[in-house]
Amino acid sequence: MLKIIRDTLESIKSVPPLRLKNAQDHLNSLTKPPGSLGLLEDLAKKYVAIRDTDHPSINRKSIIVFAADHGVTEEGISAYPAEVTPQMVQNFLNGGAAINVLARQQNAEVLVVDIGVNHRFDPHPDLLDRKIALGTQNLAKEPAMTRAQAEESIAIGIQIAIELADKGVDLLAAGEMGIGNTTASSAIFSVLSGLPASQVTGRGTGIDDKTLQKKISVIQQALDRHTPDPKDPIDILAKVGGFEVGGIIGLLLGAAAKGIPVVIDGLIASAGASLAIVLNPSVKDYIFPSHRSVEPGQDVFFNLIQAPPLFDLKMRLGEGTGAVLAFSLIESAVKIYSEMATFKSAGISDRADV
Amino acid sequence: MLKIIRDTLESIKSVPPLRLKNAQDHLNSLTKPPGSLGLLEDLAKKYVAIRDTDHPSINRKSIIVFAADHGVTEEGISAYPAEVTPQMVQNFLNGGAAINVLARQQNAEVLVVDIGVNHRFDPHPDLLDRKIALGTQNLAKEPAMTRAQAEESIAIGIQIAIELADKGVDLLAAGEMGIGNTTASSAIFSVLSGLPASQVTGRGTGIDDKTLQKKISVIQQALDRHTPDPKDPIDILAKVGGFEVGGIIGLLLGAAAKGIPVVIDGLIASAGASLAIVLNPSVKDYIFPSHRSVEPGQDVFFNLIQAPPLFDLKMRLGEGTGAVLAFSLIESAVKIYSEMATFKSAGISDRADV
Repeated sequence: MLKIIRDTLESIKSVPPLRLKNAQDHLNSLTKPPGSLGLLEDLAKKYVAIRDTDHPSINRKSIIVFAADHGVTEEGISAYPAEVTPQMVQNFLNGGAAINVLARQQNAEVLVVDIGVNHRFDPHPDLLDRKIALGTQNLAKEPAMTRAQAEESIAIGIQIAIELADKGVDLLAAGEMGIGNTTASSAIFSVLSGLPASQVTGRGTGIDDKTLQKKISVIQQALDRHTPDPKDPIDILAKVGGFEVGGIIGLLLGAAAKGIPVVIDGLIASAGASLAIVLNPSVKDYIFPSHRSVEPGQDVFFNLIQAPPLFDLKMRLGEGTGAVLAFSLIESAVKIYSEMATFKSAGISDRADV
Repeated sequence: MLKIIRDTLESIKSVPPLRLKNAQDHLNSLTKPPGSLGLLEDLAKKYVAIRDTDHPSINRKSIIVFAADHGVTEEGISAYPAEVTPQMVQNFLNGGAAINVLARQQNAEVLVVDIGVNHRFDPHPDLLDRKIALGTQNLAKEPAMTRAQAEESIAIGIQIAIELADKGVDLLAAGEMGIGNTTASSAIFSVLSGLPASQVTGRGTGIDDKTLQKKISVIQQALDRHTPDPKDPIDILAKVGGFEVGGIIGLLLGAAAKGIPVVIDGLIASAGASLAIVLNPSVKDYIFPSHRSVEPGQDVFFNLIQAPPLFDLKMRLGEGTGAVLAFSLIESAVKIYSEMATFKSAGISDRADV
């Protein structure tokens, strides 16, 4: 295993439960019935505990969109042609995609990582050129990538997290773009859960019944042919994953090592997060789930992290769009923690029984 | 019935379905798979259709917090003493409550309406003095208010909506404060649904089992004694409601008449919204539900409006806190509608089959 991955895995520590308790004590002193802000209080607690501060604030927020192509698209498993991956990358760089609109609203930056798109882009200040190859191999026929490439993709994510930590980022979101990547992610969830492909595979960008059957059989055949080891996340990533999934794994590992919370988006980011959690279970202390995707495979992630989604808006776009909506909720929670009056400071009568 | 209420009810028109269709056509031209932003697309459509514009924007946002006291508190049905109502009003005016924190985040104003608090407040720029009385009567023993007072409370809400419409407000939220008001609201939902009090009554600010039983029996006795007419919302409001509920009814009627969307918060705002919908079913075209409260009575509202909550964060604070969180989502939706690139403008390949 690459040294940077091994070192990072070793430096990740669980968040001490005492920090969560102290944060709840402060929340209970605020002018509201105890617990009455529900999950918002849980978000505040988790953020404060991760950041290990009594005066939390969220200043710099970044959405990292890992983009890559997938050889499996030649099997005809998507509603869109593969050329849409580079076209959408250009759309991100031009500020015209959904993730750009939502990021502007939240005053967050969007960084696009070309970790394996089948196109050579002109340099752009928001584009990080970390291309491993011009897309993965067709996982229906051979492993998506070599084990060395899988490790390289994780190392790239770690490096990006470390660089952002050095720049003082307070909150990250893991986004992605890659035509074909729900096929790779569903395959990952099938391996992790032991469920057949038919139970963890959805319609992605909106395929019809016939294409869905094709997609399921492509995934099942790949799993039967390559037999990824459920206990070896790097083997799973190499055989049926994607470069963007590897980048997300690395981003999560690096962020956890540096004490930075990461918000997880839909199916693909959840697949990366699940593999990261298998690599080191303490990573889950640093992950905020955001929305429930309409993709069925994501349940495997929610079971692994044992935390509920924050909302279920029937979204299935990816890019990080669900995660950036959650930025607003996490920021609400942190402001509640920092800015509300206490019963004492406001001179308000508390419950008779507490 | 007061002329202002009659005139307002007559001037409310349903939102034409063609406007929704046109908005969906525009959403389908944007660079994302059709429908992939789920409920966010529904929010955008509804907002655009209500405002009847191709270039929607949300500039001025107001949260109207109606505050009032409840005679029924003398029955011991709350975890907090009645004096907390005026204390929390002061907290709102000082900017220290949860609703203030969340409103600041969303760049929205908080206006507090004293529609019946048991305290004389000093003048404050954010406080509207519309006091009807120093609280309602104890509904366990007599009707909460007279029919004339019920109409007055609705008229006050209508007037406020009209004034805000004249000031150019784009989006409203209905909030409230009043120790004892989940008792009144549960009683309203019992009448509207025909369900016994035990099925629509929850723990409010967090009462114990014994107090919950007391609360249920107080509500059931009040309903048995006063027999509000389920088809007459003003009769329901007068016999078991509260002044703040009347204010919310009026705010919704006035806003619907003026074509301004209103976001509904938890149990109490949902009770007001339900009565407004019974008064004129077209009102529901102008209402955005926000969160699912932990209070069971709110299901009656979701059945009436036939729209799902946007999120379920296990919140039970009121004030408008759930509604203002939804402001961010509605604004996201409107920005998606206005700011995203189209497939054509971005030169992106569309699906083969559409």
